[in-house]
Amino acid sequence: MKIENARKYVVDNLKYALNPSSIAVVGASRHTGKVGYKVIEGLQKWGYKGKIFPVNPRANYIAGLKAYPTVSDIPEPVDLVFVAVPAHLVKMILEQTVAKKAKMVVIATSAFKEIGRGDMQNNLTEYCRTNKLPMIGPNLVGMGSPYLHFNCGFIPYLPVKGPVAMISQSGANLLAALGTSQMLHYGMSFFVGLGNKADVDFSEFIMYAKDDKQTKCLATYIEGLDSPEAYIKACNEVVPYKPVVAIKVGGSKIGVKAAFAHTASENEGTNDEYYDKIFEKAGAIRATTWQEYLDISLALGLQPALTSDNVVMITNGGGSGLLSCDHFERCGMPMRELKDISPMLVDRIRAYMPMFGSPLNPVDISGTASPKQYKGAITQAICDPNVSCVYGSICPTAVTDVDAVTDIYIDIYKQYKHLGKPLIMECQGGEECSKSIIKLRDNGIPAYPTAEQAVNAIVALRKYAKIKERFAK
Amino acid sequence: MKIENARKYVVDNLKYALNPSSIAVVGASRHTGKVGYKVIEGLQKWGYKGKIFPVNPRANYIAGLKAYPTVSDIPEPVDLVFVAVPAHLVKMILEQTVAKKAKMVVIATSAFKEIGRGDMQNNLTEYCRTNKLPMIGPNLVGMGSPYLHFNCGFIPYLPVKGPVAMISQSGANLLAALGTSQMLHYGMSFFVGLGNKADVDFSEFIMYAKDDKQTKCLATYIEGLDSPEAYIKACNEVVPYKPVVAIKVGGSKIGVKAAFAHTASENEGTNDEYYDKIFEKAGAIRATTWQEYLDISLALGLQPALTSDNVVMITNGGGSGLLSCDHFERCGMPMRELKDISPMLVDRIRAYMPMFGSPLNPVDISGTASPKQYKGAITQAICDPNVSCVYGSICPTAVTDVDAVTDIYIDIYKQYKHLGKPLIMECQGGEECSKSIIKLRDNGIPAYPTAEQAVNAIVALRKYAKIKERFAK
Repeated sequence: MKIENARKYVVDNLKYALNPSSIAVVGASRHTGKVGYKVIEGLQKWGYKGKIFPVNPRANYIAGLKAYPTVSDIPEPVDLVFVAVPAHLVKMILEQTVAKKAKMVVIATSAFKEIGRGDMQNNLTEYCRTNKLPMIGPNLVGMGSPYLHFNCGFIPYLPVKGPVAMISQSGANLLAALGTSQMLHYGMSFFVGLGNKADVDFSEFIMYAKDDKQTKCLATYIEGLDSPEAYIKACNEVVPYKPVVAIKVGGSKIGVKAAFAHTASENEGTNDEYYDKIFEKAGAIRATTWQEYLDISLALGLQPALTSDNVVMITNGGGSGLLSCDHFERCGMPMRELKDISPMLVDRIRAYMPMFGSPLNPVDISGTASPKQYKGAITQAICDPNVSCVYGSICPTAVTDVDAVTDIYIDIYKQYKHLGKPLIMECQGGEECSKSIIKLRDNGIPAYPTAEQAVNAIVALRKYAKIKERFAK
Repeated sequence: MKIENARKYVVDNLKYALNPSSIAVVGASRHTGKVGYKVIEGLQKWGYKGKIFPVNPRANYIAGLKAYPTVSDIPEPVDLVFVAVPAHLVKMILEQTVAKKAKMVVIATSAFKEIGRGDMQNNLTEYCRTNKLPMIGPNLVGMGSPYLHFNCGFIPYLPVKGPVAMISQSGANLLAALGTSQMLHYGMSFFVGLGNKADVDFSEFIMYAKDDKQTKCLATYIEGLDSPEAYIKACNEVVPYKPVVAIKVGGSKIGVKAAFAHTASENEGTNDEYYDKIFEKAGAIRATTWQEYLDISLALGLQPALTSDNVVMITNGGGSGLLSCDHFERCGMPMRELKDISPMLVDRIRAYMPMFGSPLNPVDISGTASPKQYKGAITQAICDPNVSCVYGSICPTAVTDVDAVTDIYIDIYKQYKHLGKPLIMECQGGEECSKSIIKLRDNGIPAYPTAEQAVNAIVALRKYAKIKERFAK
C-alpha cells in the first residue's frame, strides 16, 4: 500500500526480519511434508542460532522444540513472528503480535487481495501501520542470508555468499535465483520475498540494503510499484554508493491481469515506458530478461563501474569475438578498434599471437593460443593506461588448457585489481568451462557461458558509471 | 566463393566428409600437444572404424599407425584428405589429392584470405573446381557425427546424439556448441566447420542435411554469405520438411572487419536488414543471440510445428508465468486467456489448484502444487481440442517434488505424443532442475532454465508452422 517515503521505524526494524534473536512460527506443523514444518526445518538445517518458538494449539513439540498454543503464551520476548495460517486467522495473530510487542511480522499466507480480498488485506495494513508493527507480505516465500545462516520460509536452498541483495515480489523467481546461486555461484548478501507488499515497501528494503555491509548491489524484481516516488527517492539515496538493478514484469496485456492474480500488483494504466521513466529517474539499471537480471547484478556486485568505452576483448575464438562486437553495437556501445584505443598496444599484443590472429578488437589470439600467449596479451591490455576494461574469453579448442588460462586470468586480476578496471569473462563450452566460470566467480570475476551475457554485464558497468556521475553527492 | 546453385557433384560427395572409409591426415604429428596429433587421437578415441593414414615425411609411425611421406605414397584408396600443413604447402597437397582420386579434401590450415591472401585462396578454389574435388575450408576446426562415431579435427568433444545438424563458419562457436551438447544434452546429428568456405558452400551442406536421416533441424551459423541465392534456393528445398535456423554475425561496424579477419567473410554493403530479407526469402528462422540459436534449434529439432497461438502454460510459479507472458508479447505472439481458448477448460483446470491459484493463463497452480495436481492440470490442457501447445514449468519450492513432476510430464508426453502438440518446458532453479532439464531433453522434450528461453522456443515453433504453410509443396 502506498507510502510517501521509506519510513524510519520500518527501516530500523528490518534487521529483525533478517537477523532476529527469536522467532515465533505461527502455523507450525508436525507433518514433515507441510510448509508449516518446512519453515522450522529450514531454520534449524541452515544454522539459525536464535530461539525458535513453534505456535500450534494442537501440538506440544514440533521438530524437537516446545510448541505454544498462541503467540501470547510464549514466555520470552519475540523479535519476529512468521505467520503461515489460513487467511481468516491472520488478523487475530496480528493482534497477539502487537500485544507481544514483537518487532516485525511476516505473513506468508496467501489468498488476500490477489484473489479479490482487497479490503481484508487493507485492514491488516491499517492495523499494522496504526500499531507501528512493520508487516512483510502477505503472500510470500520467506527471507534469509547466507552470511547470517538464516533461512526463514518455504525455501529449499540458501544461496552462496556474495554481493547481491535480492528483493523480489515473486517467490518462485526468488527460489530460482537461490537455486542458480548454489549451482553457478551467483553470490547473495541477503534475499527477501515481498509478495503483495501490503505494508513494507521496496523503498524500505532498499534503504536497509544501503547500509548492509555485505550488499554491494541491489536487485529488485517488481510486479508493480504502489509507491514509485518512494522507490525513486530510496534509489537516489543508494545509487551514489551501490548500483540498483530492476526487472519489471506484468507489462503485457495479459501480464497486467496475471500480476494482479499473483501478487495483487496494480498495473492498469501503466506500461513499459512508464516504468522506463521511473527507473531512469531512480538511477536503477533495468534488465529485460531474467537471465540479464542475474547476469548484470552479479557483475555490478563484483566489479567497479566502467569509466569509458575503451574495452579490449582478448579471445581465442573469433566467433565469440563476433557475437560480442555485434551485441555491443546492439546495446548502443560499439567496440572501438584497438588502434584507436591505443596505437602502441596493437604491436605489443601482436607479439602474443600467430600471423593468422587479429589485433583488431576483438583481439583474436587464435585457437592455438597457449597460456603464455594469453598471459602476455592480457597483461599488455590491462596495463595500458588507455584501456578501461579487459573482456576475457576462453574457448575450449583441442589444444586449449582451460584450467591454466583460467588461473592466469585470476592471477592477473589479483595483481592489477588496484587499477580499478573491470575484468569480465566469457567461457563458452562444456563441463571444463562451466568449472572455470565457477572458479572465476569464486575469485570475484563475473564469468558467463555466452558472449552476449558477458557483453550485457559490461554495458551495465558502463551505465552505472554514468549513473554515479549523475547522482554524485 | 560464389556459386549459383548447390552443385550436385559436391552434395553427392559430402558423405565422404562425414562417413569416409579411409582418411589421410596430412600434417600428422608425433607430438601429442600438436594439432596434427590431436586429429588422429580424436579419430581413434571416438571410435572411427575406417582406415587412417598419417602423412608426414619425417615419421614412420604416428599414434601407432604407419605414416607415409606423401598422399601419393599411400598404397590404398583414400576417401577424405584432411590437411593441416602450413598454407604455402596446401596447393601441393591438393595436386597429390587430385592425383590420388580422393573424394573430398578438408583444409584446416589458416592464413589465407583472412590475412589478405585472397589470390592464394582463390587459386586453391579454382584448382579444386576445375578438378571436381570438393574442398571444405580452409581455416576450419573439423567435422563429425555422434551417430557415426566420427570426430575429425581439433575437437575435444563429440556431441550427444540428437536432431540438429550444425553448419558453422566459426570453429570456436562450434566447439562451444559441442561442449554445451555434452553438458546439457543439446543433441546433434552432425556438425561441420566451413571456415572461409572457399569452395563448399552452406547451400551444399543444407542439401546434404535434407536427406540425412538423423537430421530434423538445420542450424546455420553465418559470418557472411558468398552465395545468398544458393542459400535461399537450398533452404526453400528443405523447409517444407525440416526447419532451418540461422544466426548471422559480422553486422556491426567493427564486426564487418572482424568477420573478414576471422573467416574472410565479406560484409561491406550489407547490414542486418539485408540478411533479414535473405532469411525471410529462404524461410529460415533467424536467431539474434547464441543462446537463442541453440534454444530454438533444439525445439525445432525435437517438436512438431505449432499450428495456432493457443498455448497453455501450466506453472507452480506465478513469477515465471509473468516473465513468460511479457516475453510472448515482446515476441509478437501475446498469450490468450484460457477462457478465450476454451471456456470449459477453466473449470476443469481449477479443480487442480488451491483457491489462491489462477486459471488465467499462465495457469498458476501455485507453489503448493502436488504431482497429482500437476498431472490433472496438464492432462486437461493437452487433451483439450482447442489447445495447440502445453508449456510446462516447474519451480522448486520447498514442497515441490521436482523429480516426480518431471516424470509426470514425460509420461503425459509419451501418452499424448500422437496428438502432434508441442510440449515445451521451463525448469528454473538449481541442481535438481538442471537434472530435470537433461532428463526431459533425453526424452524428447525441449526444456530450459529460464522462461524467456522457453518462450523463444515456442515462438520459433509457431514461426515454423507459418513457413511450412508458405512453402508447402
